[in-house]
Amino acid sequence: MPRPLTVAAAQLGPIADDEPRASAVARMIALMEKAHRRGVELVVFPEAALTAFFPHWYMEDQAAIDRYFETEMPSAETQPLFDKARELGIAFHLGYAEIDGEHRYNTAILVGPDGTIVSKYRKVHLPGYRENEPWRPFQNLEKRYFERGNLGFPVVDALGGRVGLCICNDRRWPEVWRILGLQNAELVLLGYNTPQHDPASPAIDHLQDFHNHLSLQAGAYQNGTYVVATAKAGLEEGCEMIGGSCIVAPTGEIIAVASTRGDELVVADIDLDRCKEIRSNIFNFTAHRQPDLYTAIAEPMTAARPAPVPAK
Amino acid sequence: MPRPLTVAAAQLGPIADDEPRASAVARMIALMEKAHRRGVELVVFPEAALTAFFPHWYMEDQAAIDRYFETEMPSAETQPLFDKARELGIAFHLGYAEIDGEHRYNTAILVGPDGTIVSKYRKVHLPGYRENEPWRPFQNLEKRYFERGNLGFPVVDALGGRVGLCICNDRRWPEVWRILGLQNAELVLLGYNTPQHDPASPAIDHLQDFHNHLSLQAGAYQNGTYVVATAKAGLEEGCEMIGGSCIVAPTGEIIAVASTRGDELVVADIDLDRCKEIRSNIFNFTAHRQPDLYTAIAEPMTAARPAPVPAK
Repeated sequence: MPRPLTVAAAQLGPIADDEPRASAVARMIALMEKAHRRGVELVVFPEAALTAFFPHWYMEDQAAIDRYFETEMPSAETQPLFDKARELGIAFHLGYAEIDGEHRYNTAILVGPDGTIVSKYRKVHLPGYRENEPWRPFQNLEKRYFERGNLGFPVVDALGGRVGLCICNDRRWPEVWRILGLQNAELVLLGYNTPQHDPASPAIDHLQDFHNHLSLQAGAYQNGTYVVATAKAGLEEGCEMIGGSCIVAPTGEIIAVASTRGDELVVADIDLDRCKEIRSNIFNFTAHRQPDLYTAIAEPMTAARPAPVPAK
Repeated sequence: MPRPLTVAAAQLGPIADDEPRASAVARMIALMEKAHRRGVELVVFPEAALTAFFPHWYMEDQAAIDRYFETEMPSAETQPLFDKARELGIAFHLGYAEIDGEHRYNTAILVGPDGTIVSKYRKVHLPGYRENEPWRPFQNLEKRYFERGNLGFPVVDALGGRVGLCICNDRRWPEVWRILGLQNAELVLLGYNTPQHDPASPAIDHLQDFHNHLSLQAGAYQNGTYVVATAKAGLEEGCEMIGGSCIVAPTGEIIAVASTRGDELVVADIDLDRCKEIRSNIFNFTAHRQPDLYTAIAEPMTAARPAPVPAK
């Protein structure tokens, strides 16, 4: 029986460092109103959608760092987004930097059409490094500013299906997709802030969009799930970020994709029941997985593994 | 320091059920001689390359089934391939059905340029089912005719790098790629026999080539390894099989690909040292993997997992 749903990736262009949260929220509300006019039931906003992506620069003063974090959700500044969603009866996904006591996380929530938070995830695969590397034109300091998430990889019943969350760099790791797939995810939501330029491997900068889509498409196909993936894109405080926000079918096909690096709405009609086409056949996990042979995947990384450059 | 290697996927067109092994071997020798003229150092032949792909039909008589299996390697019929390889100084990969005592496997070997077998793999992810399903135009009976492989997922030092093996349906499972990647594979070799038509999900038959390449490209990129993947292709005993034999870079880019469904040689110059570009940065496993959170991947599949169709 079809389980139709109309979903949107609500891509954001850059957010300037001096742009107030109220402005970012207003831009998201404008996209949400547009989505409503197109019959959308779920809007996916990017990772860390309320501010500039501050891990791109180095800071030492904790008070300066904490300016980018939310201490409550909703807050006075984000309440209008929740109010608009409830008014329109639209569910939404929002990424933000979260303070919880002494702990800081890169977080995403799923908010139901009634305005209540129905799922929450804290990013596990924090990319980058911990100390300033001044030779770089911009930094990648997520490991400095965030702790590893402590909420697992959640999948919840929502919107007529099973909805999973992950964030940005998580999407490159097949382990994440599989753990969501093992929980029968049918729709995975994620946001990303991905620089066009990687100072550590500039020879493959031209492949950033390809690698983004390859990771999303493989994750979708190999787990039989839809994906809505949303970028914060464009030139933000000196760092150009890819767009390519998209909606991917459980066949791995990209069925809708952004064509700008600014604020842009990407919409698709999906049918969650189509996940079965993959999961009942080629990726019938019960019939075909061999988990007793996968133990190496969960073993600690050690220096004892063979070196990558053997003799000829 | 560059570690150049010239490799080839040696695609085979169909092998008729009444075609003798000597004919298949002669076709492979012709491709190997062509490869030699092009400076190739490693030739990858397909899965089960000596006979028609018999799991596509149902048999009960074990003697009839065993006609498709090899009891020794090399045998009198395959010795000429080993001899030619040694004469030309070319390494090769060969897939075949193997009897070992009372056990039957879907097997692949890597033979060094001196004609000695340097690695062996027995297929783990056997697709399909065990009993005849007469409604289908052809069968998929690998689970009937083969046991699950018992040699793990081998990666060996060879040809100046670390070479891993898997077979056909294994390539769709990210677990396989990761276990090869954890052993620092830099070059993964595999063969496949993949029907164009899947009677269980015909609505996505047009995506067979896409799914083949998507799986190979994701496996290559997410583990920073080259891949040489070779089809047995074309219309064989009533079953049309995809081609698309290809060589994939550790960036996930397809750098050479077949354009027929017949005997065809696909060649590329690769540099095993380029694997570092991926494995030292975005997929630096030691820096970024979180294996303590991956335990679900190695847990037994049970009926206790949540059902895929929840209430709205």
